[in-house]
Amino acid sequence: MQRYALGIEFCGTRFKGWQTQQPGVRSIQETLEKVLSKIADETIIVHGAGRTDAGVHATNMIAHFDTHAIRPERGWMMGANSILPKDIALQWIQPMDLDFHARFKACARRYRYVVYNAPYRPALLFGQVTHAYYPLNVQRMIEAAKKFEGTHNFETFRAAACQSNQPVRHVKHCHLFQHGAYLVLDIQADGFLHHMVRNIMGCLLEIGQEQYDIDHIDEMFAAQDRRAAGVTAPPHGLYFVNAYYPEQFQLPKTALGPLWLNLPD
Amino acid sequence: MQRYALGIEFCGTRFKGWQTQQPGVRSIQETLEKVLSKIADETIIVHGAGRTDAGVHATNMIAHFDTHAIRPERGWMMGANSILPKDIALQWIQPMDLDFHARFKACARRYRYVVYNAPYRPALLFGQVTHAYYPLNVQRMIEAAKKFEGTHNFETFRAAACQSNQPVRHVKHCHLFQHGAYLVLDIQADGFLHHMVRNIMGCLLEIGQEQYDIDHIDEMFAAQDRRAAGVTAPPHGLYFVNAYYPEQFQLPKTALGPLWLNLPD
Repeated sequence: MQRYALGIEFCGTRFKGWQTQQPGVRSIQETLEKVLSKIADETIIVHGAGRTDAGVHATNMIAHFDTHAIRPERGWMMGANSILPKDIALQWIQPMDLDFHARFKACARRYRYVVYNAPYRPALLFGQVTHAYYPLNVQRMIEAAKKFEGTHNFETFRAAACQSNQPVRHVKHCHLFQHGAYLVLDIQADGFLHHMVRNIMGCLLEIGQEQYDIDHIDEMFAAQDRRAAGVTAPPHGLYFVNAYYPEQFQLPKTALGPLWLNLPD
Repeated sequence: MQRYALGIEFCGTRFKGWQTQQPGVRSIQETLEKVLSKIADETIIVHGAGRTDAGVHATNMIAHFDTHAIRPERGWMMGANSILPKDIALQWIQPMDLDFHARFKACARRYRYVVYNAPYRPALLFGQVTHAYYPLNVQRMIEAAKKFEGTHNFETFRAAACQSNQPVRHVKHCHLFQHGAYLVLDIQADGFLHHMVRNIMGCLLEIGQEQYDIDHIDEMFAAQDRRAAGVTAPPHGLYFVNAYYPEQFQLPKTALGPLWLNLPD
């Protein structure tokens, strides 16, 4: 049996998220499994590094699967990309030892959240950015983003439905970049709770609108209560951009994106 | 009666081009006219700076219309953008004197053509870039692009169906930029013939594949025959990014794009 790791780009707009929930509901996982099973001529189960919500995108979602089928790497790639729908595409495939696991061996995950800040809505990036039509105090948002760095109990910033058994996460970095009319939050952590990035972004958008001071974030953390924070930012500005693994696994390095966004790695 | 100029962003994927051709065929022009007529409560005719093919996009297509309706500028904007479909949005509106004409007063138009050069297809920008999976000699393409600058007879580079009565155009600049895996052609001319940018891009892609030498472009020009040049590049990499008018008209300056592409103006 051979284990393979995959890098997957997808536009989440027309998917009900990563995870297969019930038959007939279009998920990334189910779409991939159907196509890879066809190529392998056996049932393939795909394990992803993270689960994304409906409408959330990815530039380099990492996953793995096991198979008895023997195919050249180019065969998997060309085969899958010719059958997969237009809004999902494999970017790379790599044979792995059986001790690799896309979910359990990931030591960090990274997301980017893109806000388009302009008075009128975009037409070209509809569904791929979050439109904020109101003026934003970006300097404040940049400063506020730093509050989320380090080890915190993120109880206030996870969904009520979150199934994780503990809410403490270590955020390695949380930077907000401005790029013309675009604001991009770049956040990396050992793991993320349900809606964590979207709740942090919701908070930053409220701070950008000067609804409260930066120090109010300390009180939000202390409350350990979802009701102490504000709205959840919409899914369509969010991109899963990478997962990180111990050095030994040597996965390919890819441009993080999304699109031709050129930010420091 | 009041004349207004408009800046329009649209994703051309699901439109049959700018121009209304027959009832029931979805064109940008028809879509705009319907919405503006509803807001004005009278029949509005929209005149665009250029006509784009099916699948071609725009970041700042300029158009004008006349109306007897009296509405604040914000009323036109909010009204139109709330009714227009997601893939088309007004970016600005400005009252103009009656001597302005989006098509006849335009002294230059500018397009950008985006190629994504990578072995495997993109999922996020499907329909918004042209995918070239083969290796390209980019330095040669950059050099070759210069061949199209200046005043030339573009007979070889216009569609057989082109209706223009003369094929000489002055190309102010024709630059190819490389930006990671993206190549962007930026071309400005007094006017463009039917398929002119797509035919130039088709030629540059052949040069990038080293199918012939740069100097062969001179022979193509000399032939004055469409059959002397290669394939027409697909429409979905092409963006109308601006039209230019005499200084007196003072139209708003906008980011050319597309997306957050940061190139010199």
